[in-house]
Amino acid sequence: MLPTALDKLATLLSRLPGIGERSAARLAVHILSEPSDYAASLGSALDELHGKVIFCEACHMLCERQPCGICRDLTRDTKTLCVVGEVVDMMAFERTGAYLGLYHVMHGVLAPLKGIGPDDLRLGNLEGRIQSLGVQEVILATNTDVEGEATALYLARRLEALGVSVTRIATGIPMGGELEYLDQNTLSRALVGRRELKLHGPT
Amino acid sequence: MLPTALDKLATLLSRLPGIGERSAARLAVHILSEPSDYAASLGSALDELHGKVIFCEACHMLCERQPCGICRDLTRDTKTLCVVGEVVDMMAFERTGAYLGLYHVMHGVLAPLKGIGPDDLRLGNLEGRIQSLGVQEVILATNTDVEGEATALYLARRLEALGVSVTRIATGIPMGGELEYLDQNTLSRALVGRRELKLHGPT
Repeated sequence: MLPTALDKLATLLSRLPGIGERSAARLAVHILSEPSDYAASLGSALDELHGKVIFCEACHMLCERQPCGICRDLTRDTKTLCVVGEVVDMMAFERTGAYLGLYHVMHGVLAPLKGIGPDDLRLGNLEGRIQSLGVQEVILATNTDVEGEATALYLARRLEALGVSVTRIATGIPMGGELEYLDQNTLSRALVGRRELKLHGPT
Repeated sequence: MLPTALDKLATLLSRLPGIGERSAARLAVHILSEPSDYAASLGSALDELHGKVIFCEACHMLCERQPCGICRDLTRDTKTLCVVGEVVDMMAFERTGAYLGLYHVMHGVLAPLKGIGPDDLRLGNLEGRIQSLGVQEVILATNTDVEGEATALYLARRLEALGVSVTRIATGIPMGGELEYLDQNTLSRALVGRRELKLHGPT
């Protein structure tokens, strides 16, 4: 129905996650309706992408030179290491501004049904990093879905012998959440994980 | 936080409709995780887009040669003309397979608040087409929002003098819709537009 050049673009766009056939057609038509500069700069950004972006040899974050900005940053706390599944998870933590330690990006989680085992994740240098940095706490910050939980459990067992403290990010009720609409699983976890309310700080 | 090359791509993607800053970052990271062929073909599809795609001089649909496939198709009914706002609207009708006439794509609707008047739409050749094709029915198929309704009313008045039948697509309850969840406006329109149920076809 669409001209070939437009259809080709729409087909490629529909391969992106979360973009269906119709949205892809809409995006392609939108790109065409913009001044041609836009398509040109998008095209050149795509062309230079793979050539310029590399993986940090330490934490496996995406970067343009070794090591990445965070691993290079001398103000970061090298005694704390946060293990995440994907680059976007790391970005979510950075956005909070609440974490000042280092990261380790696995680029995936264990998923036996998809044939993804420990060797398919970027874990080869994890123990080495923990030892050479003298890490004291490893925070397992995978998603709280089945695969993320299983991966956290796997990592906890794997790191047991190293004698570092291994923690898991808290599960519970999201801020602003309404109890009425939360699933039973989250609610019971929140109950089990309850903490004493400290009205006065340590003196 | 992201490497410059990736950030540049994410920024460009976030300018697309319906794609926020976070989705754009996720898409950029996804493109990078795909084999580099993908970015390369997306890049070249974008590069050749503006050079190859033109507007049909008759109906203003996007095409690669004059006139477009539909205007060129001798099996289409040239006595019926369906006026739509956007290319994607035309595509939606084509997908139904229920319409066999020709189209007229305005590339917009009247929107006084955005400063879009009749001269900003591709309407210059509308009357000419209606007369030269000998069109008997013009179907006004703009959206049923305020701007779409206003545009349909404008067109109906504008085409009045031509003596062709001017119709508007039906408003009512969408198929599979549940009355309980529909807005009052749709419900009252569905009531006003009720039709006699014919159990037996014409004999």
